[in-house]
Amino acid sequence: MKKIEHIGIAVKNLETSNSLFEKLLGSAPYKEEEVPTEGVKTSFFRNGPNKIELLEATSTTSPIHQFLENRGEGLHHVAFEVDDIEEEMKRLKAEGFVLLSEKPKKGADNKWVAFIHPKSTNGILVELCQEIK
Amino acid sequence: MKKIEHIGIAVKNLETSNSLFEKLLGSAPYKEEEVPTEGVKTSFFRNGPNKIELLEATSTTSPIHQFLENRGEGLHHVAFEVDDIEEEMKRLKAEGFVLLSEKPKKGADNKWVAFIHPKSTNGILVELCQEIK
Repeated sequence: MKKIEHIGIAVKNLETSNSLFEKLLGSAPYKEEEVPTEGVKTSFFRNGPNKIELLEATSTTSPIHQFLENRGEGLHHVAFEVDDIEEEMKRLKAEGFVLLSEKPKKGADNKWVAFIHPKSTNGILVELCQEIK
Repeated sequence: MKKIEHIGIAVKNLETSNSLFEKLLGSAPYKEEEVPTEGVKTSFFRNGPNKIELLEATSTTSPIHQFLENRGEGLHHVAFEVDDIEEEMKRLKAEGFVLLSEKPKKGADNKWVAFIHPKSTNGILVELCQEIK
């Protein structure tokens, strides 16, 4: 766990929230990207060594749609940068954390990603991510 | 907004969660601190350029107690480091954000802090913080 790579924020409307976060952070998103396998449209803002990811659901089966229905807009996940995602998954599993997949998956922003179930991390959806070389 | 200074996580029991986050992050908290004015006991972990703050309520009137009652354990706030907190408060107010205080207050970890109301920031409690010199 090298740093907070990004925090993920569930929003109802990406365009509206892009303009809100541009005012908050003082800079525009540096990219928008759709991840069809996750049913989301995302935008990314830089903030020094960290990023902010906004996520809008693109279908009613998207986990973001479900989150918005249950809790409304807000903090959705926190992602930590790791050097070796497979090693880190092995270490965390041995420590008793519950991983949502056996192998890393291709996520947004050119990353291998894996998630830890919130029930093993105080209610927080934790993402591990490693840059794809 | 220079970086994510820390994310704040509401927990039921600080000792239990300290040991959980020590396993997750691979290092122990570098400090514990009580903030009586906010009704919280906190611990801080370093994670590269960022920190993780755990917050336990010390009274039933604490905002953290209320948060745990409403939502359970989980992500509570995100704090951004700023150079000049009073200037940043002025800028954000002019942009239409709703601040929770007129002036910065003394927070944990040797910081001046101010909060933005979640209703103006997509449901996220945003903290601004500036190191006290």
